[in-house]
Amino acid sequence: MALVTEPTIIFPENTVSQDEMVQVLENLFPYHPKWDTIERMIRNTEVENRHLLSPINQVVTHPGFEFRNNLYKDEGLKMSVDATQKALDKQNMSPQDIDLIIVVSCTGFLMPSLTSYIISSMDFRPETKQLPVIQLGCAAGAWAINRAYEYLKAYPDQNVLLVSVEFSSLLFQPNDQKISSLISDCLFGDAVSASIIKGTPETGDEGYHIDGITSYVKKNTDHYIKYDVKSTGFHFDLDKMVMHSIKDVAPIMEKFIDGNSSKKVNELDFHIFHTGGKKIMDELVSNLNLDEATIGFSRKSLKNHGNIASGVVLDVLKEEFSSNTKKDGDKGIMAAFGPGFTAEINYGTWIQN
Amino acid sequence: MALVTEPTIIFPENTVSQDEMVQVLENLFPYHPKWDTIERMIRNTEVENRHLLSPINQVVTHPGFEFRNNLYKDEGLKMSVDATQKALDKQNMSPQDIDLIIVVSCTGFLMPSLTSYIISSMDFRPETKQLPVIQLGCAAGAWAINRAYEYLKAYPDQNVLLVSVEFSSLLFQPNDQKISSLISDCLFGDAVSASIIKGTPETGDEGYHIDGITSYVKKNTDHYIKYDVKSTGFHFDLDKMVMHSIKDVAPIMEKFIDGNSSKKVNELDFHIFHTGGKKIMDELVSNLNLDEATIGFSRKSLKNHGNIASGVVLDVLKEEFSSNTKKDGDKGIMAAFGPGFTAEINYGTWIQN
Repeated sequence: MALVTEPTIIFPENTVSQDEMVQVLENLFPYHPKWDTIERMIRNTEVENRHLLSPINQVVTHPGFEFRNNLYKDEGLKMSVDATQKALDKQNMSPQDIDLIIVVSCTGFLMPSLTSYIISSMDFRPETKQLPVIQLGCAAGAWAINRAYEYLKAYPDQNVLLVSVEFSSLLFQPNDQKISSLISDCLFGDAVSASIIKGTPETGDEGYHIDGITSYVKKNTDHYIKYDVKSTGFHFDLDKMVMHSIKDVAPIMEKFIDGNSSKKVNELDFHIFHTGGKKIMDELVSNLNLDEATIGFSRKSLKNHGNIASGVVLDVLKEEFSSNTKKDGDKGIMAAFGPGFTAEINYGTWIQN
Repeated sequence: MALVTEPTIIFPENTVSQDEMVQVLENLFPYHPKWDTIERMIRNTEVENRHLLSPINQVVTHPGFEFRNNLYKDEGLKMSVDATQKALDKQNMSPQDIDLIIVVSCTGFLMPSLTSYIISSMDFRPETKQLPVIQLGCAAGAWAINRAYEYLKAYPDQNVLLVSVEFSSLLFQPNDQKISSLISDCLFGDAVSASIIKGTPETGDEGYHIDGITSYVKKNTDHYIKYDVKSTGFHFDLDKMVMHSIKDVAPIMEKFIDGNSSKKVNELDFHIFHTGGKKIMDELVSNLNLDEATIGFSRKSLKNHGNIASGVVLDVLKEEFSSNTKKDGDKGIMAAFGPGFTAEINYGTWIQN
């Protein structure tokens, strides 16, 4: 009832390598008392390259919350329109074919939302429904697919456009010098992604067909992943306790997959996991007894782009399309994790009509 | 398939009358060159009283975006839990009966969202789904009911909790001295509202049963209602052009109601309109040829509480419950307007089981 078609991922043209970023931070904080620890931890992130909305020297200089949020709007809209057009073209569809636009993001705040700007900027119908969400962080990509599944269960002849807009570089805070902040500065990457989710697969369609969904909130863990909202904008704050959340969510994934397919997670044909970071992926491998190859595309996404937040699951899904290893009927799981602590999980079938 | 049950509205204990507010602003801006115009326009808002999160002397003194946003979180959560418990009690339900929590708001930004804080603070199930939206302004109340309708169309045996958290007083900007800003300072009020939306009405239930929904975006009117996001927080900006939007949305309402009931809007038994302000209501009366009595509850809400943003439609709906004038089978419309320019509209039947 919900076919997630091939995503389009658009990266801004500026890049920064791990080596360059180490140099930039060392120059910014030449007297940091924990520098050796920080450098070792950055080297251990396995993030080798990231794309940035602006050149790195601009990223690390705070031009004010207002300037950054205006940049978010201008570039976010431009790249959203570009990604949307490409995603529509892949399906031979036009904006007129879309009934609901979901925009997920956690790196800027606009009112009106990007949903209405996108509707105005392209040939969408005035009655197109809007679902703009900016408070679910890295869980928001899988979350949006789960909400699209529910929507298309009610309206199986309709179609949903999903857009993810993530410019984490706009959250670089030069005065946040905690170890965890400096590691985060080297973890997240910028990208805008789009995918069409169709209510009814047609002949010739290929994609990830959602068969079931579930959500999970680990209570009283709001401090695991959070923003402090200040005059300087959003300050990302990560508690290393978040690593322990995977051991709680793993049995929930197992129970959910068992209920849908009588299989174990590691018996599925493909796995689309959010790449919170190296440690999160190690925890997934360990707690779900996964073959390392299973999460190869997630590792690759992290290595080449950093954590692109809500866009990660779309980037990993795109790799599944590009791999040409999928066959009709393959079974898979998607799971993403974010603030709350929230996990959004779905199960489905690869379709090649 | 979606029964909106009696809302609970909670107002903070501080209040400010129109007379007091005129005095406060005159003291703040004793040399304002347009003061006479401003005072006349404030007197014309027909807002006589408003509830405020803090005493008025605190409201008009900007303590910083961070302080305000923390207040938003602490008081927003406390009042959300209170309103939720009361709304559940009215239906003899517990948090365990809720499958989806929608929190709409446009006066603060939290990550994690209030949805996860509410789940942690009460006896909700960990698999409760979250839908937090903060970018749809005054349209968000009717928007949320429309999304709940779609959700319950897919899951008719489930229930949705809707919470609206609006503290517009946290957006008072002492440096915004445009006429439109000073009028807005006297227009909006604070409130937290909650309502349970049931997928399947049961014996003894009363409420507004949604039979149909529609959405509308007037393209290229993002400047009608918008926030400028700055280091000082959200700056509300209203273009008086927004008044002309009602003449565009009126025929859309007529067509929608005709398609659902073969009636005109003014032939319906009840009307739940967002109270954007006096002029918006005058435009509704004029463009829909309404009897003035039709919008009595909307006028009353504006007069006694100011525009409580996404909560208005819930407050007006509550008046419909309290009025004891509704009878089983009555037909009605709900419509709210917000940034985009966006209108969210639904049609339904009063049910007394």
